Amino acid sequence: PVRQLLNNLPGAEAAHLLESSPPREREILWQLLNKEQETEVLQYLGEEVRVELLRNLSTDELVSLVEELDTDDLADLLQELPDHVTTQVMASLDEQNRERLEQVMSYPEDTAGGLMNTDVITVRPEITFEVVQRYLRRRGDIPRTTDNLAVVNRKNQFIGLLPLTKVLISDPGTTVREAMITDVQSISATLPAHDVAKIFERHDLVTAPVLDEEGILVGRITIDDVVDVIMEEADHSLMSMAGLDDDEDTFGSVWQTARRRALWLGINLLTALAASAVISLFEDTLEKVVALAVLMPIVASMGGIAGSQTLTLVIRAMALGQIQTSNARYLLFKELSVGALNGLLWAAVIGATASLWFDDVKLGIIIATAMVINLLMAACAGALLPMTMKRLGIDPALAGSVVLTTITDIVGFFSFLGLATVLYASLQV
Amino acid sequence: PVRQLLNNLPGAEAAHLLESSPPREREILWQLLNKEQETEVLQYLGEEVRVELLRNLSTDELVSLVEELDTDDLADLLQELPDHVTTQVMASLDEQNRERLEQVMSYPEDTAGGLMNTDVITVRPEITFEVVQRYLRRRGDIPRTTDNLAVVNRKNQFIGLLPLTKVLISDPGTTVREAMITDVQSISATLPAHDVAKIFERHDLVTAPVLDEEGILVGRITIDDVVDVIMEEADHSLMSMAGLDDDEDTFGSVWQTARRRALWLGINLLTALAASAVISLFEDTLEKVVALAVLMPIVASMGGIAGSQTLTLVIRAMALGQIQTSNARYLLFKELSVGALNGLLWAAVIGATASLWFDDVKLGIIIATAMVINLLMAACAGALLPMTMKRLGIDPALAGSVVLTTITDIVGFFSFLGLATVLYASLQV
Ligand SMILES: [Mg+2]
Ligand SMILES: [Mg+2]
Ligand SMILES: [Mg+2]
Ligand SMILES: [Mg+2]
Ligand SMILES: [Mg+2]
Ligand SMILES: [Mg+2]
Ligand SMILES: [Mg+2]
Ligand SMILES: [Mg+2]
Ligand SMILES: [Mg+2]
Ligand SMILES: [Mg+2]
Ligand SMILES: [Mg+2]
Ligand SMILES: [Mg+2]
Ligand SMILES: [Mg+2]
Repeated sequence: PVRQLLNNLPGAEAAHLLESSPPREREILWQLLNKEQETEVLQYLGEEVRVELLRNLSTDELVSLVEELDTDDLADLLQELPDHVTTQVMASLDEQNRERLEQVMSYPEDTAGGLMNTDVITVRPEITFEVVQRYLRRRGDIPRTTDNLAVVNRKNQFIGLLPLTKVLISDPGTTVREAMITDVQSISATLPAHDVAKIFERHDLVTAPVLDEEGILVGRITIDDVVDVIMEEADHSLMSMAGLDDDEDTFGSVWQTARRRALWLGINLLTALAASAVISLFEDTLEKVVALAVLMPIVASMGGIAGSQTLTLVIRAMALGQIQTSNARYLLFKELSVGALNGLLWAAVIGATASLWFDDVKLGIIIATAMVINLLMAACAGALLPMTMKRLGIDPALAGSVVLTTITDIVGFFSFLGLATVLYASLQV
Repeated sequence: PVRQLLNNLPGAEAAHLLESSPPREREILWQLLNKEQETEVLQYLGEEVRVELLRNLSTDELVSLVEELDTDDLADLLQELPDHVTTQVMASLDEQNRERLEQVMSYPEDTAGGLMNTDVITVRPEITFEVVQRYLRRRGDIPRTTDNLAVVNRKNQFIGLLPLTKVLISDPGTTVREAMITDVQSISATLPAHDVAKIFERHDLVTAPVLDEEGILVGRITIDDVVDVIMEEADHSLMSMAGLDDDEDTFGSVWQTARRRALWLGINLLTALAASAVISLFEDTLEKVVALAVLMPIVASMGGIAGSQTLTLVIRAMALGQIQTSNARYLLFKELSVGALNGLLWAAVIGATASLWFDDVKLGIIIATAMVINLLMAACAGALLPMTMKRLGIDPALAGSVVLTTITDIVGFFSFLGLATVLYASLQV
């Protein structure tokens, strides 16, 4: 009954069910799938879960499983499997399919070439719609998500697109050349997946032709795979900001998860120790004025919060391709001004609060000044860190917030305790 | 020259240029657009920027601008404009278009009904492909992104989809009924946009029919609008985690930005004051052992980091619909175990470090114990907060991290300073 239910579910739903299950239940559900449904489900599983389930299969089972996959999905999958399995799967394909697969695998996974499928239908510019329609009828099936035919010359160079709807509504005597669209967004096979997604999103595309350096048509990208790219990128930003791997399995094993996260916590422990080292410079002052210990976390934490806002905004703007040298200056100016305004506002509030709480105006002045300094610093760091990191080849979504909060902690503690040391010392001398 | 360049750019590119410009440049660029390009650009602009630019136009200009928009985009736009403008635009439409617009506007913007367009081509099941093709030819144009025709009965109730490719490749004598697909993902007009996106993503759809409660076809949703929903949702998660509005304009004005962010900083100041209040409970202990002030931020900050990891993971899993009551228990168990393992590991490290640094084993034991307590607390809060908040109708992406770090700060300071008070007091008695 469960078995039947599971095998009759659409592949995507069954895959979702597997991903939402704790390890033991997941294993059991996978055993219940029949061959056909396994192949279906495989296409929809996340990378980590997929690799985990495939690890338990024999090579023969694998070969028969993967035969049904699309070229792009197969290429991804093979890169995750041991070499001898890849060789065997390759050997089981016919020549044409092997060549196609090799072509897709020759491009990195996160480029247009790695995303593409090779199932494009091509036509020549000189034929008429009548011939096109006859050709399609003889062919008998048209791959899913086909909205255009690709028009190519003798050398297989891309020259235009022929929308299927035109074939349907135009006079059968029309030639392809007359009706084709030449003002087309074609995509270079080496274009990063992120830029492919931007082109699809901006131009509302359903499919796009992929060309190599010589303008030869090598495949096409379909919107469903672009949607997956967009979702993975969003996932990546969200997860890396918390120091998590975007392939992390929600219901993964305890041991594996703990090991993965340990490094991130270790790095953060180091930065916390750095902040402690700064505080320890002011032990004498802290000993004299215990109120400083009480208020100490406030300036540092407000800097972290304000800085994260700027950081997030700038990382997003960079991902959207909105930042160039020409407008970076305005952005920095804007964020500094915002930091100054909010710094003054909340400095006044916390200054008054501290003065009243500890009945000490000097303490109020110290914390207010430190607050303004740290919010300016936070704006500066939040705006400049992502741009600098990108130039250095570091992922700002991953490293940005650790570095930022280290800066705002250190500047926060240093300015607050340093000012206090100067001001209280001057009084006692 | 700039004017010509700008007006010849694809609408999406010109819109991107406007969005990437500081306020003054943006105003100038907008003035340079001709009527036709303005309409084009309007469709691609973000909400905040669009409303800002439209605010300066006269109603007549608006009416002529918006006539060119798709029904779904027009519906969105009108909801942002003053009532008298809406009325005038409505009056300028012909009856059929007005009825369609009213239908789209009768559904909330973030539901299937608000996302849909009304440009579906419908056919009856009893006609042959020859008739279908003749009908399409007479019609002359087929809306962009049309992959299927909708098959409806006399009452306009939806009964199936007819892929255009079938019309192309099948015998002209085939009837619609013979070839149509009835096993179709149709979408209820009241379905939330988030769920619409999940259906499109899971089933790799390009378009889907939208039905009202009686099964009557009211429109269709196209993948380009679903892509926008997916990107907006991702944007929303990312931005709200930093307390930012997802419509925030990267190059907005200083004053507006400062005002918007002030509230978030104010809330965080309150939570920082709460942490300070906790610390102030232990002023006597801090006065005696100044090393406590130096190490104090470590336990609190590690709790915040570890808790954010759990929080992010759970928020993502909830967005993906992976969490039910059945697996929530496993997830909590897993996160607690991970918290315990990492707690023990880093407690040992920080315990040893503190003992050596201050030559005080007791201090090492105190900070190690507090670390384990706070990482367990962090796992608990990170896992349970999002589920609880969702039940209370609070957005966990927005409020989750504030509440979480308040908890980890308070528990971190309280356990560390509390343990210290007990242990150092017992020594001195
Ligand atoms: Mg991958
Ligand atoms: Mg691939
Ligand atoms: Mg778009
Ligand atoms: Mg694919
Ligand atoms: Mg795919
Ligand atoms: Mg991933
Ligand atoms: Mg909107
Ligand atoms: Mg809408
Ligand atoms: Mg999909
Ligand atoms: Mg639309
Ligand atoms: Mg749209
Ligand atoms: Mg909004
Ligand atoms: Mg938005």
